[in-house]
Amino acid sequence: MANYLKQFHLPDPFTFHRGGTINEGLLAYETWGELNKEASNAILLLNGLSADSHAASHSESDTAGWWEFMVGPDKAIDTNQWFVVCASSLGSCKGSTGPCSQNPKTGEPYRFDFPDLCIEDIANAAFLLCQSLGISTLHTVIGPSMGGMTALALILKHPKACHHLIHIASGLASPPFSTAIRSLQREAILKDVNFNQGHYSADAWPEEGMKFARKIGMLSYRSATEWKDRFPRSLKKIPDHPFGVEFPVESYLEHHANQFIHKFDPISYLYLSRAMDWFDGYSYAAKGKNPLAEVTLKKALIIGAETDLLFPKDLQIDLQSLLKQTACETTLNITDSIQGHDAFLVDKPLFSELVGAFLNQSEVCN
Amino acid sequence: MANYLKQFHLPDPFTFHRGGTINEGLLAYETWGELNKEASNAILLLNGLSADSHAASHSESDTAGWWEFMVGPDKAIDTNQWFVVCASSLGSCKGSTGPCSQNPKTGEPYRFDFPDLCIEDIANAAFLLCQSLGISTLHTVIGPSMGGMTALALILKHPKACHHLIHIASGLASPPFSTAIRSLQREAILKDVNFNQGHYSADAWPEEGMKFARKIGMLSYRSATEWKDRFPRSLKKIPDHPFGVEFPVESYLEHHANQFIHKFDPISYLYLSRAMDWFDGYSYAAKGKNPLAEVTLKKALIIGAETDLLFPKDLQIDLQSLLKQTACETTLNITDSIQGHDAFLVDKPLFSELVGAFLNQSEVCN
Repeated sequence: MANYLKQFHLPDPFTFHRGGTINEGLLAYETWGELNKEASNAILLLNGLSADSHAASHSESDTAGWWEFMVGPDKAIDTNQWFVVCASSLGSCKGSTGPCSQNPKTGEPYRFDFPDLCIEDIANAAFLLCQSLGISTLHTVIGPSMGGMTALALILKHPKACHHLIHIASGLASPPFSTAIRSLQREAILKDVNFNQGHYSADAWPEEGMKFARKIGMLSYRSATEWKDRFPRSLKKIPDHPFGVEFPVESYLEHHANQFIHKFDPISYLYLSRAMDWFDGYSYAAKGKNPLAEVTLKKALIIGAETDLLFPKDLQIDLQSLLKQTACETTLNITDSIQGHDAFLVDKPLFSELVGAFLNQSEVCN
Repeated sequence: MANYLKQFHLPDPFTFHRGGTINEGLLAYETWGELNKEASNAILLLNGLSADSHAASHSESDTAGWWEFMVGPDKAIDTNQWFVVCASSLGSCKGSTGPCSQNPKTGEPYRFDFPDLCIEDIANAAFLLCQSLGISTLHTVIGPSMGGMTALALILKHPKACHHLIHIASGLASPPFSTAIRSLQREAILKDVNFNQGHYSADAWPEEGMKFARKIGMLSYRSATEWKDRFPRSLKKIPDHPFGVEFPVESYLEHHANQFIHKFDPISYLYLSRAMDWFDGYSYAAKGKNPLAEVTLKKALIIGAETDLLFPKDLQIDLQSLLKQTACETTLNITDSIQGHDAFLVDKPLFSELVGAFLNQSEVCN
């Protein structure tokens, strides 16, 4: 384990939102910066489905993290000023307990015996971690994509947990289009013969299913606009066999999907993917009522992208409208980034500027 | 064979755009209305990938066609006035010769020995049919989706073949996003063990591959906006097994994909799908030049939809711009239909109005 990687032991038992418990649950997490005496400078970073606790490097010799350009000394999330916490999501396969972890009761992996995982469970586990670090109220919670849902679950379950929110490329519930994409990704994994109802092994890995699931996902991560500029119409090559890889966009999908196959655990992927489709922030209030009415956020920044297919802007417009009904000072920024859902990972100058400016203008709260 | 279904024998040999020939090629076609003495009232209808020659019923006892609301007496394409021709595409499995047809040289299906099929081949075969019917110049060619590409191929290969064009939900080339979707559809079929490199049978049909291909396609046929209004967030049912069908949009995909499995031949699907990705109308001129410069169209109506993911509006805007550089009087209508690519099949009043008005205002040309 890298020396910056820490472990938090969840309380025994840890009870899930939909019922079921685990014992000896762990969260793998990392921190950057120093928590001040008042514990008033803490930022919780909640991550997307396939990301892990390694949001940024800790030293020059360290590997880059998934939000390297955003988190660090003198960066938009300035670790000279803020104490930043990022955990691998509960249920994921990146050091935190998930369905591929060993069940202490049986000595075998949980597989489908892992309790039904909800976004609320990821939020609850991360908040327990923060509390264990001496943070009772977060200065800011930041979540892109699945992390945005997790941030909303956190403030729905713990309305006084955070003073500020930065919500990126996400929403209070998945639109059916996004559910359809994720459903097909799950189906691709489930129908791989090597998936074997969760009893796969390193030697018989559901490679084809993982690869195809990633390719389907990639349809939704960028945008048709970006791809149009990126891939020529001309053919890449004569394929080796009829209907082999031939078009430039096919090579791109093939290359990136191949890189993903062994980077994520298939059954964890299923659990996290379904959790996103189950999440329904609207269900926290009766129809027509505001589910965020109890929230005591001071300020929120909501960012979306015109080209985001997975979490389109109407979700962010709706979230702004609901937050504005509370005392929360809410800013909405629908960017014209052409990188679609992934803009927060790619459009570095714009996202640094937006996040940095919001944090600089936020008050220190006690 | 239904008494309205006719067969046209292609000349022997029929030579393909990329080389290769077939003998004894057939087109299945249907006609509505009467060709006038001057042969000046002919409309050629070119269809989408999965459609066939049966665009509309011929009598009340007949089954409805794929554009039933559009074609018929007193409808937008008024068969009291126009002589309408529609053929199943060359390469399809709907009565016209395709890769699943018997190769007269071997007595076996062509399978992958069928020549490489291009959109140009579909266009050439359909134009030969028209010529065989005594039509040297079409009053109007109408093509939605793949049919729109076929219409453009027709006027590129035969610049004087048509006086008028109605081009719907299509473009001069596939954007990489659409190619990616079709590539994944092809991959789903190819990797089904029952596909067996084209040696499948009715008893061992690549059902899973066809079903999954259809589901992937369905992501692109409608729009996220339509689905948002259509499918509730609430869950449909408790699934029979973990990760079974649960969300309303999953039931919808499942239902429609199941209906498709045996409606189309898998290898025909591959050939037609790839033909769409190969088509590049821009390649008919040097870079920066107008590939449509030689075209003698008098008038064109180009229709798109704001919500079309498969053929987004920039394609139609570009086509309008190129046609306007010729003497062609060109109208562009990007509709606000929420039904996405399928709007021409679903938004009946709007599309009837647009097509009907264009035809009513078109001159009779000799």
